[in-house]
Amino acid sequence: MRQALREIEVETRGRGLVEITGRAADFVGAQGMANGLLTLFCRHTSASLLIQENADPDVRADLETFFSRIAPEGAGLYIHDVEGPDDMPAHIRAALTQTQLAVPVAGGRMLLGTWQGVYLYEHRRAPSRRRVALHLMGA
Amino acid sequence: MRQALREIEVETRGRGLVEITGRAADFVGAQGMANGLLTLFCRHTSASLLIQENADPDVRADLETFFSRIAPEGAGLYIHDVEGPDDMPAHIRAALTQTQLAVPVAGGRMLLGTWQGVYLYEHRRAPSRRRVALHLMGA
Amino acid sequence: MRQALREIEVETRGRGLVEITGRAADFVGAQGMANGLLTLFCRHTSASLLIQENADPDVRADLETFFSRIAPEGAGLYIHDVEGPDDMPAHIRAALTQTQLAVPVAGGRMLLGTWQGVYLYEHRRAPSRRRVALHLMGA
Repeated sequence: MRQALREIEVETRGRGLVEITGRAADFVGAQGMANGLLTLFCRHTSASLLIQENADPDVRADLETFFSRIAPEGAGLYIHDVEGPDDMPAHIRAALTQTQLAVPVAGGRMLLGTWQGVYLYEHRRAPSRRRVALHLMGA
Repeated sequence: MRQALREIEVETRGRGLVEITGRAADFVGAQGMANGLLTLFCRHTSASLLIQENADPDVRADLETFFSRIAPEGAGLYIHDVEGPDDMPAHIRAALTQTQLAVPVAGGRMLLGTWQGVYLYEHRRAPSRRRVALHLMGA
Repeated sequence: MRQALREIEVETRGRGLVEITGRAADFVGAQGMANGLLTLFCRHTSASLLIQENADPDVRADLETFFSRIAPEGAGLYIHDVEGPDDMPAHIRAALTQTQLAVPVAGGRMLLGTWQGVYLYEHRRAPSRRRVALHLMGA
């Protein structure tokens, strides 16, 4: 048993889901481990991780609508507003989704279901660069 | 240190929580590892995993009411409706709960609290068969 | 590769976030492993874990306001009320946040981002003692 660690940077274009399935798969494939556990960790509190449907882009649009409704921006809604009206909603969205995901690996590949993709979820309005740590432990 | 991997199928009866604590415990017990980390991974985007109270079934009923309120079905609410009115709410529920859970193992048993059960949460109306990967790493 | 396990008790003062970053870091530091994976597991269903901003305390106040709004207490809202009006909202809050967190470790330290803190989130009104299992696997 051994482990491998890498940090990747994900460029975002403001609010929305950015698929990183391919980059995670590349990392896993490059380590030459048949079986193991991949952990992805988002090093931010206004972006997060999510496994979601990778087929119909409407799903991502509807998710965005849902989170905008449940954690709206708005004057007077939050005490914490010094970093802009989209910052506190971003923290709430991050709390409701995941900072970290773990995916079992078999035959050198993540054990994702057919329709599952791995996404970084940017919650701020502005484009950004987000750091995600990838950790693989296996044999 | 070594690892073990198995996939189980969970039959659901439509929306609601199906306890899988016993099946996870059986898997852990069969591997003969005293200590380790069990990871459960749900290979779907319209079902998810959750650790919840295992005592009073009313808790599960109230959870269901909560998620039905927060992510309602409804004509015109979602763009993504080709798979039925319960599909997009199912993706939202999955985003708000967990695709993956990790539970430390000690003395050959999951370190669950007294009132904790491990559940698959079916989010679609129709009964289904759901695949959950179980991965144990330990010694 | 080897592993270490410890259970810590976290004293809470009723609803709100209690930072446990330092205690997790102490555990990691004491194991003398350069690289690995730390898993934190909350052994309760009315408290949970969350990685959140550690800078502005207003963020924690706004989070609390959000969860009070989305999962309110109230006569007649829930079937499950035998443990008090704050118990079922606590289970909902726990379902929406995390029972378990995994954080990669490098150079003997958790790979947290600059503004990330690890918190136990107490969801009941009364002060309590909460048990969190810490599991480290690495080399």
